[in-house]
Amino acid sequence: MPVYNAPVDETLFLLNDVFNIAQYGHLPVFAEASPDIVKAILIEAGRFAEEQLLPLNQSGDVQGCRFDNGKVSTPEGFKEAYRILVENGWPGLITDVEYGGQGLPRVLNAAFTEYMVSANMAFALYPGLSLGAYEAIALHGTDEQKQLYLPKLSSGEWTGTMNLTEPHCGTDLGLLRTRAVPDDDGSYRITGTKIFISAGEHDLTENIVHLVLARIEGAPEGTKGISLFITPKLLPGSGEANGVSCGSIEKKMGIHGNATCVMNYENAKGWLLGAENGGLKAMFTFMNEARLAVGLQGLALSEIACQNAANYARERLQGRSISGVKEPDKPADPIIVHPDVRRMLMNCRAFNEAARALIVWTALKASIAIYSQDKDERRRASDHMALITPVIKGVLTDTGFANTVAAQQIFGGAGYIAETGMEQYVRDARIAMIYEGTNGIQALDLVGRKLAHKGGRALMGLFGEIDGFLQDNADDEALAPFTAPLKAARDDLEKATGWLMSNAMSKPDNAGAASTDYMHLTGLVILGLMWGLMAKTASEKLGEGAGDKAYLENKLITGRYFMQRLLPETSAHLARISAGAGSMMALPAEAF
Amino acid sequence: MPVYNAPVDETLFLLNDVFNIAQYGHLPVFAEASPDIVKAILIEAGRFAEEQLLPLNQSGDVQGCRFDNGKVSTPEGFKEAYRILVENGWPGLITDVEYGGQGLPRVLNAAFTEYMVSANMAFALYPGLSLGAYEAIALHGTDEQKQLYLPKLSSGEWTGTMNLTEPHCGTDLGLLRTRAVPDDDGSYRITGTKIFISAGEHDLTENIVHLVLARIEGAPEGTKGISLFITPKLLPGSGEANGVSCGSIEKKMGIHGNATCVMNYENAKGWLLGAENGGLKAMFTFMNEARLAVGLQGLALSEIACQNAANYARERLQGRSISGVKEPDKPADPIIVHPDVRRMLMNCRAFNEAARALIVWTALKASIAIYSQDKDERRRASDHMALITPVIKGVLTDTGFANTVAAQQIFGGAGYIAETGMEQYVRDARIAMIYEGTNGIQALDLVGRKLAHKGGRALMGLFGEIDGFLQDNADDEALAPFTAPLKAARDDLEKATGWLMSNAMSKPDNAGAASTDYMHLTGLVILGLMWGLMAKTASEKLGEGAGDKAYLENKLITGRYFMQRLLPETSAHLARISAGAGSMMALPAEAF
Repeated sequence: MPVYNAPVDETLFLLNDVFNIAQYGHLPVFAEASPDIVKAILIEAGRFAEEQLLPLNQSGDVQGCRFDNGKVSTPEGFKEAYRILVENGWPGLITDVEYGGQGLPRVLNAAFTEYMVSANMAFALYPGLSLGAYEAIALHGTDEQKQLYLPKLSSGEWTGTMNLTEPHCGTDLGLLRTRAVPDDDGSYRITGTKIFISAGEHDLTENIVHLVLARIEGAPEGTKGISLFITPKLLPGSGEANGVSCGSIEKKMGIHGNATCVMNYENAKGWLLGAENGGLKAMFTFMNEARLAVGLQGLALSEIACQNAANYARERLQGRSISGVKEPDKPADPIIVHPDVRRMLMNCRAFNEAARALIVWTALKASIAIYSQDKDERRRASDHMALITPVIKGVLTDTGFANTVAAQQIFGGAGYIAETGMEQYVRDARIAMIYEGTNGIQALDLVGRKLAHKGGRALMGLFGEIDGFLQDNADDEALAPFTAPLKAARDDLEKATGWLMSNAMSKPDNAGAASTDYMHLTGLVILGLMWGLMAKTASEKLGEGAGDKAYLENKLITGRYFMQRLLPETSAHLARISAGAGSMMALPAEAF
Repeated sequence: MPVYNAPVDETLFLLNDVFNIAQYGHLPVFAEASPDIVKAILIEAGRFAEEQLLPLNQSGDVQGCRFDNGKVSTPEGFKEAYRILVENGWPGLITDVEYGGQGLPRVLNAAFTEYMVSANMAFALYPGLSLGAYEAIALHGTDEQKQLYLPKLSSGEWTGTMNLTEPHCGTDLGLLRTRAVPDDDGSYRITGTKIFISAGEHDLTENIVHLVLARIEGAPEGTKGISLFITPKLLPGSGEANGVSCGSIEKKMGIHGNATCVMNYENAKGWLLGAENGGLKAMFTFMNEARLAVGLQGLALSEIACQNAANYARERLQGRSISGVKEPDKPADPIIVHPDVRRMLMNCRAFNEAARALIVWTALKASIAIYSQDKDERRRASDHMALITPVIKGVLTDTGFANTVAAQQIFGGAGYIAETGMEQYVRDARIAMIYEGTNGIQALDLVGRKLAHKGGRALMGLFGEIDGFLQDNADDEALAPFTAPLKAARDDLEKATGWLMSNAMSKPDNAGAASTDYMHLTGLVILGLMWGLMAKTASEKLGEGAGDKAYLENKLITGRYFMQRLLPETSAHLARISAGAGSMMALPAEAF
């Protein structure tokens, strides 16, 4: 059975040393986030994940959710764990003080969520979606809506969901058919069927706040006629049942402990959230939040899978090191001596540490985008969020999944057996590449929308950050193993961008054909920058004789591994991008 | 529910046009393989897979095998399908005429096996393993053993298994503990526990012929003291039960229709197969056969997953083409218009067609290695088999798995739902990267053993074939889109090999650190050669006005896609190989 140690030290290294969050003390959400409080919260967060959630992960997978006549039961123990989550105030960690929250910075929730997902992804989805619903209502709701829903979502007394997909429309929301008819009291009557609704029905809370995309009678066709509605399971105040029911739950590859529901709305009472026909904009608040959370899932599953693979590799005795026997008193050496096993472990580790840095960096930018007093700084942080969200979603889930596969591989035949728990990580991680917009959609969002927005301002901002780092450290020979490869990777990104500018305007298929490679190329460059920042910090601290020497030296080694072994992939991405859409699009559809 | 069309035309293009098997008519096994007979057999093979096996694939996954007090029941319908398989003589397709077989060339069995695995991998493992047992006994058995077992294995009346793994020893067979004590009658008494035994117990046949690795009392430690024993479930002649029992079956990620058994041997009667303490050599006959078959599984699952993904992509309406609306009379365009969807389909297709060519080429070499009258030709074919076996196993299963993931991705959310059947392909394909030696072991076999064998003769042979092709077609401008990239990839392989020669002798960890990348680099180069051969054939036939024009033109497009989009990865492999083992091995084991 898998074990888990929440990487609190890693989070603290990032918060305190690499990104030095103390410098943001003047911003409201950071005022209360003293180093001691941050540390205490992270330790408790880790403990909650390890002690309450991890023990329910495998049993939750085996039992799954049960559906009986519209009711959904979560696996044994989930209810109690959720009760403890609420009792300890975790759902309100970063929600507004005004609505009962603790108003702490997002970085803390990013860490807490990572630990929760590592320990039990199916469970973590329940509170995760509530936070998205909270944000959407906080940003787009009326005062009355905020007063009605935010305290309950903040406390965890209610949970939230996001209802977009219908059987005939997933990515292409313009096709959606769920309709809303105005009622006399200013509310609407919602009718339609939604599918793939995570946590659409469950037994953890009494009420569930569904945010539902629907088309108001007479609204324009396509995406311009879509509105968003708050459609609670029970009507607030009266507690009466609304016209919402769960028709069935899906049998699926993984995340069995989370109910994926078909939701039927029959004349359900809904209240417009945000502007009429402005539903997509309001939903995108939720969606962007969710995309970052999904990227985080890629990291979280990679982390726990690799922790267990490393433990196994240290214990499993098999074969002898090719560089000479390492444990002569044992019948064989532990398999961690074999380079190819190391390769898989180092791939995971070098990715995980940079991915966590990227998550923290981006969560900081999210707070800066809201709270900074400097308009330019807010703008730059917003640009960053817009550009990086699809990269985090797409790259962290693709690579996170690949890492769960590698971790399973280290177990050999045992990894294929359910008992070891390794195959569950592969099955669970797989969904993250699909939901909240497939990774192909993320890549298109990046290349087709984010890149060109405002004359490419966001990307120029990113190049500015990278080039600033490279210039600042141009003379630091100790950092050359980081700056030189980062420069080469950054140049590949620049060339790829130039290629797109020259070739995608005249032939849009060239953009589509390049999109996934471009997303991964961007991801590698940013992860490379994260390694640059971490290496600089580690190197400085070593120079000062501060901190844990072995820890910092290992950091530098892992970073060098990333630069030598993962970053060179940028050149292959560039080659594929430059190949264009020709041979990709040439076959007639019937030929397949 | 997935559909399947056996790619008979693809197989025929390879057999008749690319590799022209008619040229081998002078060799015994090819004498009867006239084009008409070959075609008839392939059509029947495809029909058997489509009609008998495909309908049992999803139900077999859901039901799985059942274990009850030592008895294993296969899923509903498997018994009847196996009966039809036997009735139609498929198990004897390539076994010797002397033992009741049809004595046809291996290429036919490669095609038949591909079709079977595509339609139902769990089922296909039962006859697949029998063929391995047949080969091992045919090559290493006494006349008496051959008379006793081969007719039954050839007819399919009995099945066979391979028993290597024990709880504490998988890869490292030197650690094995199962022991054999000589009996008075020349037989042995086998005692021990074996795990992960595919098809170790089932209800398809009355008897099962287990080939079991064990250590004869007093034999040397390690791999030098291992012998192989024929240990049937029922004793031939008397039909009495042997001391063999199935202790349990594993709950696993996929191939649920195939029983993965814990096998207990208690004083079971076994007969030495091959020389005393020569068990590994005899087992490797079986193992090499099995490795090629497992590589084929990677192709087969990639093929059916991609067929279904292509069908879905043609039917699912979602979004509009970025190059302009393609189906204005429909609410949206089919998703096959989107370049990123095409990318995934083309990745699969470009790989599948080359992988199939590699399988056919290698199956031809297998026949040549046995039957050619030219000693040098036999030697070259044997070299090829030795070098290519780990590449086929490792590369085709890694890439085949990745393709099932991509095919699932094309289905979006529906791909994660069990009903569509796409997630089953991912789960089933996953085992192929693990069993019969993990892919890491394949890579080590290639780099540590096959490469250096006889001064690198096999690799030089491969370079000879590639360089011959490049020279023969140096002036053919139509083939330049193939020869130029192949030349570049081949140069990467040469550089990587040179790097290993200079750096791995002094520091063996450099070989281990390079192994997986080297295996994939080799695989890409060979698949590139396959595309060169196919393109040349297609181009010649087009020039002659022979054959199906559209088919041949599509072949050239798909080949160009491979050259532009898949082959460039060789440079990233070379970069990683050249990075050496330094940062990979530097962390202390405790640091993980």
